[in-house]
Amino acid sequence: MAERNVIPATAEQVDFLKSTITSIQDYPIKGILFRDITSLCENPKAFALTIDLMAQAFADQKIDKVVASEARGFVFGAPLAAKLGAGFVMVRKPNKLPRATIKEDYDLEYGTNELQMHTDSIKPGERVICVDDLLATGGTMSAMIRLVQRLGGEVVKAAFVIDLVDLGGCAKIKDSCNVDCVSLLDFPGH
Amino acid sequence: MAERNVIPATAEQVDFLKSTITSIQDYPIKGILFRDITSLCENPKAFALTIDLMAQAFADQKIDKVVASEARGFVFGAPLAAKLGAGFVMVRKPNKLPRATIKEDYDLEYGTNELQMHTDSIKPGERVICVDDLLATGGTMSAMIRLVQRLGGEVVKAAFVIDLVDLGGCAKIKDSCNVDCVSLLDFPGH
Repeated sequence: MAERNVIPATAEQVDFLKSTITSIQDYPIKGILFRDITSLCENPKAFALTIDLMAQAFADQKIDKVVASEARGFVFGAPLAAKLGAGFVMVRKPNKLPRATIKEDYDLEYGTNELQMHTDSIKPGERVICVDDLLATGGTMSAMIRLVQRLGGEVVKAAFVIDLVDLGGCAKIKDSCNVDCVSLLDFPGH
Repeated sequence: MAERNVIPATAEQVDFLKSTITSIQDYPIKGILFRDITSLCENPKAFALTIDLMAQAFADQKIDKVVASEARGFVFGAPLAAKLGAGFVMVRKPNKLPRATIKEDYDLEYGTNELQMHTDSIKPGERVICVDDLLATGGTMSAMIRLVQRLGGEVVKAAFVIDLVDLGGCAKIKDSCNVDCVSLLDFPGH
């Protein structure tokens, strides 16, 4: 069973951070309540607090690399890497990385997408956190974790700012990759 | 005339950071010497030093917002914003931002691209730094600056990790937008 953890924060901190997220009804399609983190990032206190809380959660974990996928994943992964003193690894869409890569597909509602990582981005045995802004069904994160694991990295945790808990992404990632998820803010899935 | 400034760093720091950048001949097309910053980001000391030096350069400038365009701009802009205690604003390609946006086109070798920003991302009078990983001819940066200026923001500086100095992007940005550029590392353009 997936161990579901929250990134430690006070109730006041969680309430404040949630208040800076914009919820948009019927975007991108009818029936979806979209959680927009651009407004959290534009609030100086909320953005710095988010990075600080994520960094505190991993400060004693000897993390070598933080891995994130473009584009919103970079917004949280890069500051977390800088704060932890870890390297930052970019996972990108096809034809964006200039050197030799490995690839993983992941399923969309219709069709598949592909993510790529440079083959020299992770050294065997490195301790890695994979980061994204939002956990839905976990397809993107699972592909990112597989890339790290194929290069011999140990994924210590998958970390998210937001978990849409009703969608069960945490359990899917545990089942498929044997990695536990942590998140700072929970919302229902719809 | 454009005032060309460097972000303060010692010769040893500059040499170290340049040593972590991978140069790739004939990528993406023959005749181009591509400067790949993924290897700088994956080096923990180089990535933290880059962010620290950029933050030191603006620490006393009362910056309200750091603005960057996807995807590589996010890798430096987001940590800089977190470090300065500023808000971070995402400039994105079309159909990525969920709320009301303004748009600016910029020229490519063939055709044009479009960048978008939420209309509420910048308040009139806010002091802004626009950030990107690399300055070539300055088209992307000029479009980003115009978006900020249209919303009433004051662009204090355009900041880059790398300036390909032979391409004259700095002078073009000064001419078109009246904003000075600063960069940490200079390379010839080809």
